Amino acid sequence: MSTATLPSLSSLLSSRRPHHALPAGLYTRPDVFEADMQVFFQNHWILVGLECEIPEPGDAQVLDIGKAGLILLRDDDGQVRAFHNTCRHRGARILDAGATVISKLVCPYHQWTYEPTGELIHAPHMGVDFDKSCRSLKPVAVRNVGGLLYVCLGENPPKDIAVLQDVMEERLAPYGLRDAKVAHQVDVIEKGNWKLTMENNRECYHCVGSHPELCVTFFDLDFGFDPAAMSAEERARAEQHVADRIAREKRWEAEGFKSSHVERVIDCETNFRTQRLAINGGGESQTPDGKAACAKLMGSMTRKDLGDTHLWGHNGWNHFMGDHVVSAMVIPLTADTTLVRTKWLVHKDAREGVDYDLNRLTDVWIATTDQDADLVARSQAGVQDPAYEPGVYSPHTEKQLDNFASWYVQRMQAHGY
Amino acid sequence: MSTATLPSLSSLLSSRRPHHALPAGLYTRPDVFEADMQVFFQNHWILVGLECEIPEPGDAQVLDIGKAGLILLRDDDGQVRAFHNTCRHRGARILDAGATVISKLVCPYHQWTYEPTGELIHAPHMGVDFDKSCRSLKPVAVRNVGGLLYVCLGENPPKDIAVLQDVMEERLAPYGLRDAKVAHQVDVIEKGNWKLTMENNRECYHCVGSHPELCVTFFDLDFGFDPAAMSAEERARAEQHVADRIAREKRWEAEGFKSSHVERVIDCETNFRTQRLAINGGGESQTPDGKAACAKLMGSMTRKDLGDTHLWGHNGWNHFMGDHVVSAMVIPLTADTTLVRTKWLVHKDAREGVDYDLNRLTDVWIATTDQDADLVARSQAGVQDPAYEPGVYSPHTEKQLDNFASWYVQRMQAHGY
Amino acid sequence: MSTATLPSLSSLLSSRRPHHALPAGLYTRPDVFEADMQVFFQNHWILVGLECEIPEPGDAQVLDIGKAGLILLRDDDGQVRAFHNTCRHRGARILDAGATVISKLVCPYHQWTYEPTGELIHAPHMGVDFDKSCRSLKPVAVRNVGGLLYVCLGENPPKDIAVLQDVMEERLAPYGLRDAKVAHQVDVIEKGNWKLTMENNRECYHCVGSHPELCVTFFDLDFGFDPAAMSAEERARAEQHVADRIAREKRWEAEGFKSSHVERVIDCETNFRTQRLAINGGGESQTPDGKAACAKLMGSMTRKDLGDTHLWGHNGWNHFMGDHVVSAMVIPLTADTTLVRTKWLVHKDAREGVDYDLNRLTDVWIATTDQDADLVARSQAGVQDPAYEPGVYSPHTEKQLDNFASWYVQRMQAHGY
Repeated sequence: MSTATLPSLSSLLSSRRPHHALPAGLYTRPDVFEADMQVFFQNHWILVGLECEIPEPGDAQVLDIGKAGLILLRDDDGQVRAFHNTCRHRGARILDAGATVISKLVCPYHQWTYEPTGELIHAPHMGVDFDKSCRSLKPVAVRNVGGLLYVCLGENPPKDIAVLQDVMEERLAPYGLRDAKVAHQVDVIEKGNWKLTMENNRECYHCVGSHPELCVTFFDLDFGFDPAAMSAEERARAEQHVADRIAREKRWEAEGFKSSHVERVIDCETNFRTQRLAINGGGESQTPDGKAACAKLMGSMTRKDLGDTHLWGHNGWNHFMGDHVVSAMVIPLTADTTLVRTKWLVHKDAREGVDYDLNRLTDVWIATTDQDADLVARSQAGVQDPAYEPGVYSPHTEKQLDNFASWYVQRMQAHGY
Repeated sequence: MSTATLPSLSSLLSSRRPHHALPAGLYTRPDVFEADMQVFFQNHWILVGLECEIPEPGDAQVLDIGKAGLILLRDDDGQVRAFHNTCRHRGARILDAGATVISKLVCPYHQWTYEPTGELIHAPHMGVDFDKSCRSLKPVAVRNVGGLLYVCLGENPPKDIAVLQDVMEERLAPYGLRDAKVAHQVDVIEKGNWKLTMENNRECYHCVGSHPELCVTFFDLDFGFDPAAMSAEERARAEQHVADRIAREKRWEAEGFKSSHVERVIDCETNFRTQRLAINGGGESQTPDGKAACAKLMGSMTRKDLGDTHLWGHNGWNHFMGDHVVSAMVIPLTADTTLVRTKWLVHKDAREGVDYDLNRLTDVWIATTDQDADLVARSQAGVQDPAYEPGVYSPHTEKQLDNFASWYVQRMQAHGY
Repeated sequence: MSTATLPSLSSLLSSRRPHHALPAGLYTRPDVFEADMQVFFQNHWILVGLECEIPEPGDAQVLDIGKAGLILLRDDDGQVRAFHNTCRHRGARILDAGATVISKLVCPYHQWTYEPTGELIHAPHMGVDFDKSCRSLKPVAVRNVGGLLYVCLGENPPKDIAVLQDVMEERLAPYGLRDAKVAHQVDVIEKGNWKLTMENNRECYHCVGSHPELCVTFFDLDFGFDPAAMSAEERARAEQHVADRIAREKRWEAEGFKSSHVERVIDCETNFRTQRLAINGGGESQTPDGKAACAKLMGSMTRKDLGDTHLWGHNGWNHFMGDHVVSAMVIPLTADTTLVRTKWLVHKDAREGVDYDLNRLTDVWIATTDQDADLVARSQAGVQDPAYEPGVYSPHTEKQLDNFASWYVQRMQAHGY
C-alpha cells in the first residue's frame, strides 16, 4: 500500500471501534497532526498560562502553540489581553518566546509600534494612503478562569467555556491563584503524539508499576478497579475506600468546599473534568512523604486536609492543594513529539529555603513526568508498528481514555473531517 | 514539475531500462521507501540474527525493522520463536532493543504478562468479559537456516524459503553456527538507500580502487572481468584463474564440501546466491595477511584451506571461513539512510587474546565497511541529482546488480505496484 | 483543512495581491520549495562563483545547488567550464564539495575517467559494445560576466543573460575581478525561505533599526523615504541628498565610470539591478569608519572615491568598491533554511597584515549578515503563523520587494505553475 492510498482521515475516524484505542494513523500521520493542531489547538480553548505570570501592567508571556505565536500581556489598565505574535507589516515575530516586560510592542524588523491594546501607532515610510486603524495586532480570545488563562486562537471560540468558568471559579477561589507565583518550571519533550500524552495522564492503571513516588500520595483505587479480580479481603477494602470517599466529599461540601465530580467530555466542545480527592500518605500534599512542602498556604487556605482538586482538560492537568499547585500544559510539537510544561505554584510571599524547599516541592512530579515520558515513548513506538491493533480499554481503569477517544472523534467530525 | 505530478510508482518501475540502474525516484522517494519496507522487509524473508545469540531458554534479542519491533527468543522448551514487540493492550513496546533474558514477557506499561510462547496469562482490571485467549502476542514466522535466523513479518511468507534451507543447511553444517559466539559487532549507518547498499555489495568492480585491505584476500577476477580490454598476458592469467577455480571447486566437492554456485534471484521470491571461493594472500581467512585470525576453528572444521563460502541475500551478506564468520545484516532506516550491522563469529570456546586477537579478526571488514559507507553516500548524492540518468551496468562485473534490479522490479510489481 | 486540501500552487500564485507580500504557503510549503528550486535554481541563471577562484588550468570549485552537484573548472586551454557532478556510470559524485585541483576527473567509485573537457576516456570492464563517446560528463551552461560566474543548470538557459553581460562587463572591468583573490569567506545558514533572504536584502528600511555598522557607510535615503512623514527640515535634507546624488552620478559618468541605475526585473527572465551609490562616513569603503580597508586597490582602480557599484540578482548581491569587493551568493537548502555564502575579494597581490587587516575588511558585512539572519528567522517564524496575512509593502522603501514578488509570480506562471 503506497502512501498515495492511505485511508482518508474521515475513514480513519469512523473506523475506530467503541471502547478501543484509536487506529494507528491517528497517532502517527503528519496530516492527522496538522488536522489536530487546527481543530484542537486553533479552534478549541486551550490552557496557556497563569494570570500570576503577568501580575503587573506591561508584563508579557510569549509562547508558541505549534506554528502560532501567542502574546499574553497585562495592559496599562490591568486587563489581560492576548495577541497573535505576528506583525501586520511583513509578519515578523514581534516578541521572543519567554517572559518580558513591555511598554509598547515594537516590531524589531521595521519598528512598527503597537499599544498594549494592540493599536498600531507608528509605521514609518508607509505613505499618506496608509490606514493604521485597520492594522491593529490581531487579538486572541482569552478567558481567565480563577487565575488559569485559556485562549482560543480561532475566530469562533466554543461558547461552553462558560461552563468551565462556572464550575471552576468557585472551586479555585480559595487557592488564590492571582496571588501565587511560579516557584519552578520544567519542560519535558515526550517522544509521542499528544493524544498518547493525554491518555497516559487520564489513567492511573499504570501508576502502581511506574510511579513509586506518586503512589505515596495517590489512592489508585480512586481511578478505578476491577472487583471481580479481587480477593474478598481486597474487595472489602476497596468498597470501604469508596464509602469513605463519598462521606468525605459530603463533609467537604458541607464545609463549603466544592468537591463533587464534574465531567464535560462526550457531546461537549470544551473538555474538562474535575474532582476533589483525598491525599494518601501524609494526607496533605504531593510530596515524598505526603506532608505539605510549603509552610505558607495558598490564597485564603487555612487547612491542609482538603485534598487535591484535580482539573483535567484536553491539553493539561492541574492539582490544587493547600500548600501548592502543580499545573501542566501540553503543546504538540510534531506528530510524535509533545512538550509538557509543568509549573509549581506557591503563595507569592512564600520564600524559597524558608517557607519551602524546592526539591521537596518538585520531587514527585519531576519523577512522575520523567516516568511518563518513558511510557509515552514506548506507546508511540508501539502504535506505529505495522502489527499494532487498537486494544480494548479496561472498563474499570480506562473509562476516561475511552471518553477522550470518543470526544476526539466527535470533535474532528464536527470540524468536517 | 510539482511534487503533485511525480510519476506513479508503477510507471517508475516500468520505466527501468534493461541492464540499466534504477530510475532515481526508486532510490530517493519517501513513498518508494515506504513501499520497499512493506514489500521487502514486511513480506519477504529477511536475515535478522543468529541462533547463537539466543543460546539458552529465556535468551532474547530485540530489534527494530523499520517501524516494526521484533522479539527473537528461545522458549522454555528450547524452541526459537519470534514475536511482534507490541503489547496487545495499547501497543506499548514490551522489550527494549538489544539483548536480554526473560522468564515471562511483562509489558512495563500495565504489566500485561505473556509466556515465552506468546500466551497472555495476566491482564489486570480488564473485567469479567475479557478473553485473554485471543490476545496472545502476535507471532512472526521464523526459520533457522543452519544457525542463521530469518523472519517474515507478514502473514504470507514466501514458500521458497525451503530452497534456501535445502541449499544452505548442508553447506553451513561444518561451520557449527549453533556453537559459535559473536566476538564483535559494529553498526554503521550508511547515507544511502538500502538498494545502493546492496548494489555496492554485489560487485567487486570497485574493490581495486577502494578496498586495499579486502583485496589482499579477494580474487577480484572471481567477480567478473572484461577479456576484450585485457592484454594477452592478462587474459591468459584470467583464464588460468578460472580454470583453477573450476578444478578447485571439483576437488572441494569431491571432498564433501559443497562449493558450486547457486543463484536464486530472477523469478524467485527469496533472493539468495552462494558460492565457495578461494581466499587470496595467506589463503585462509579475510585478515590483513590472509592467515587465520582464530586458532580454534569453527564447528567441526579441521582445515583452513576451504576458502570462503559466500552467501548473499537481499538484506545481507555472509562469509563463512575455517576460523571465523562475518555476517552483515542490512536494515533500511529512511529513504537515504541504512543500517549495516556486521557481526564477527568465532567458535564459542575461542578466547579473546588467547585464540584470537580482536583487531586481526575485525580489521579487514571494519575498513571495508567504512569505505563502502563512503561510496554509498557518494552514490546517493549522485542519484538524487536532477542530472542523474541511470547508467548501464557492466555485463562483466555488474551482472549481479542487473539481476538484483530486475528482481526488485519484479517483486514490486508482484505486490501490486 | 487537511493537507490534502491545500490550495494548488497556481491558485496560491494568483491569490497574491498587488503591492503585498506573498501568501504564506509560498514561503513555507515544501512543494513550493521544490518548484522554486526547479524554476529559479535549475532554469534561471544563478551566481555561483568567481573566475578568480579557478585561476589556473586544473583548478576546480565544487558546490551543491540543492540536490544538483556542480563542478566549475578551468580546462587545459584556460577555458572556464561547468559540469554536473554525477558520473555517467552509476551516478556517483565525482568530486567532493570545495576547492580542488585536477588533471583528469576520476570517479572514485569505478575509476571512470573524464578529460577536463568532459570527454570520457576510460571506463574499465564495460565490454566491446560500450560507446564512450555518448557518455561525456553533462555540461552546464556557464557565463563569465566580468569575472562573476553564472550558470544555468537546465537545458534552455534564458537568452537575456546577454543584457546582464552588456551592462556589467563595462562596469566591472576597472575592478579587475580576474586579478582578485578571495581574502575571506563566511557561510551563514539563515532560518528562512530564500525569498525572505532576498526580500530582506532588497530594502534598507530595516537598516536604521538593525545595522549600526552598515549605517556608517550607507545613505539610507538612497533606498527610499516617505516625504510626507518628514519635517520640513528633514525633507529639505532628503531633497538635497537626491540632488547631490544626481549630480555625482553625472560627474562619475562624465569621468568614464558608468553609474546609472539599471533595473531588469518585471517582464525579464534574468533578474538584476545595478547602480553606483556614494559611500557615507569615510566615503571610501564599507568598513567600520568608511575608509579603505586595503591599501592596494582593485584592478586598474586609482581612486577610492568612486563609491559602491551595487549589483543585485535573484540569488545574490555584490558591492564593488575601490579597495575591495563583497560578493554574496544565496543557495536555498530547504523551504525554511537558506545558505548565504559571503566572499571578500581584494587584489590578488594584496598581502594580509600588510596591505589589509582582515578584521577591518570583514567586520561590517559579518555583523550585517548575522543581523540579517536574525531578521529572516523572525520573518519565517511569522509568515508560517496561521494568523499571518500578507502585508502591504511601503511604496517608498519596499518598491524592490514588490517588484521581486511580482517577478517571482510571473516566472512561476511562465514555467507552467
